[in-house]
Amino acid sequence: MSIQSPTLNVSILSKDASALAEEIANAWPQSHALNICQAVTTSEQINPDEVEVLLADPNLAAEVIDQCTGLKWCQSTWAGNAPLLNLDKSDYILTGVKGVFGKLMREYVFAYLLQYARNIPAFAQNQNHQPPIWEESPRAPLTGKTLGILGAGSIAQALIPVAKSFEMKVISLSRSGQAVDGFDDVYVATDLLKFAQEADHVVNLMPDTPATTGVLNQAFFGALKPHSVFINAGRGSAIIEDALLNALDNGTLQAAVLDVFTQEPLPEKHPFWTHPKVVVTAHTAAVSSPEDVASVFVANAKRYIANEALLYQFDFNKGY
Amino acid sequence: MSIQSPTLNVSILSKDASALAEEIANAWPQSHALNICQAVTTSEQINPDEVEVLLADPNLAAEVIDQCTGLKWCQSTWAGNAPLLNLDKSDYILTGVKGVFGKLMREYVFAYLLQYARNIPAFAQNQNHQPPIWEESPRAPLTGKTLGILGAGSIAQALIPVAKSFEMKVISLSRSGQAVDGFDDVYVATDLLKFAQEADHVVNLMPDTPATTGVLNQAFFGALKPHSVFINAGRGSAIIEDALLNALDNGTLQAAVLDVFTQEPLPEKHPFWTHPKVVVTAHTAAVSSPEDVASVFVANAKRYIANEALLYQFDFNKGY
Repeated sequence: MSIQSPTLNVSILSKDASALAEEIANAWPQSHALNICQAVTTSEQINPDEVEVLLADPNLAAEVIDQCTGLKWCQSTWAGNAPLLNLDKSDYILTGVKGVFGKLMREYVFAYLLQYARNIPAFAQNQNHQPPIWEESPRAPLTGKTLGILGAGSIAQALIPVAKSFEMKVISLSRSGQAVDGFDDVYVATDLLKFAQEADHVVNLMPDTPATTGVLNQAFFGALKPHSVFINAGRGSAIIEDALLNALDNGTLQAAVLDVFTQEPLPEKHPFWTHPKVVVTAHTAAVSSPEDVASVFVANAKRYIANEALLYQFDFNKGY
Repeated sequence: MSIQSPTLNVSILSKDASALAEEIANAWPQSHALNICQAVTTSEQINPDEVEVLLADPNLAAEVIDQCTGLKWCQSTWAGNAPLLNLDKSDYILTGVKGVFGKLMREYVFAYLLQYARNIPAFAQNQNHQPPIWEESPRAPLTGKTLGILGAGSIAQALIPVAKSFEMKVISLSRSGQAVDGFDDVYVATDLLKFAQEADHVVNLMPDTPATTGVLNQAFFGALKPHSVFINAGRGSAIIEDALLNALDNGTLQAAVLDVFTQEPLPEKHPFWTHPKVVVTAHTAAVSSPEDVASVFVANAKRYIANEALLYQFDFNKGY
């Protein structure tokens, strides 16, 4: 007689609910019984009484999680989880998706850094000109430059091998300033201006916590270099928008590439849309596929069934 | 009494003659005497009788090198040296510039691969739209894809660490098909179609030799994938232009990024300029700085004075 694990009852609440259900069914190991009891796209559709294990977009989960009194574990589909961490409820295990975002983020960051390094827009203008223009355009190799990353977590660390392959120096800034393998230097949060002065280009990947709100202010942008590209792929709330716009107008940095905003979608009339030194993308820097999310969920579900510690667990006290 | 090396008499013939002279003077070791006897920008200005050691753009050197009967060593300012290798004269040492081009080439190649991977033009269109459009655009990560490099020399090898940092597989094709460290596979030249079928994206870096002329033909472009990006940063003569244009029109590949052409500057009326799936750059993928060239020259000059073998020497019989 084989020992049969009890059935795992899973609720899914996500804009990608059906794709997630399908990918989980594909990846599920035969040794365990799985029951996807509900897979819905809005919080109104969910039955909170049935929720024990929840796979959810955290913005949707936040609307209903207080009513899920039987909730034991919530696997978020995002890396960040501010919508859930900002609530009072903390009597459950909250895990995020990690690992997969780094692979996407490093392509986003270097796509834009290289666009400026190689001056792609100038060549495109030359090609579109009538008659076309055959000429060199100024370029600024990444080799030998310093990449500054705000944040030192798994996504930040995913940028290290790429930066090193271009022979860049890589520095980081984190709350603790504790050394992390691969970074040439890690600055403590209170040394933000020293960090800004040292970097040639800066990528913000800080989590959305009260401690990071508005820290990228006039002094920070003023400490960058005229050739600096600033990329915000962390959270919109980290920057003081007027300070960034002023710094761009004053030429204290070259350009800003922004994927995240305090209000999303970015309002039609927002000056970022039309500023000649700003690139806007639609919070898509590291959009993971349902397949990616499902693989993290299944890995964690196996651990859950086996009573092992889950991966990528959040700490409600620390807020990340 | 110290032993004094004889003075090294150097002639410079290059469009960057004065910058090169300055950078060489900066980098020259005090232990040796240097005399830059002429530094000119056209072949008409040079005195061939004075030429013993020549630092030259090979297209300019080709116009005068037959008259330089005292020439012992020519350091070219380029990586490729077809203008000199195509001449009969071969009674001197010819060296090229290597090492520096790889650092520039890898940024060019990945700037354009990532532009397509991240669909930068679609986001730019959305931003420029009135009103602006906030939406995801289809992207195609490089992770897990196969980069095919035509050529396996120092520039091709410089792409390996970057491709690996994005977790790409890297295959190469060379005359011999001999294994080279870092490539997952090296195809022999006769297996071109197998190579094309295996690759997701292809970069041509083959040298300009009779054996490579026109080898990238209809069969080659037809073997690529609808998502393939083809980058030509080797020599224009490698491709059959009509075959590439037909393949782009038929959708057997996604796009072509072209830096080199059989006729340069690319003629105003050439269809490459206006084809919606072609990016044209002005033979600038790996334009080295005078500082880069000077550092290679000085390293080789020290070896020349010490009677040591020079770096990056060309073989007149092999043609590369």
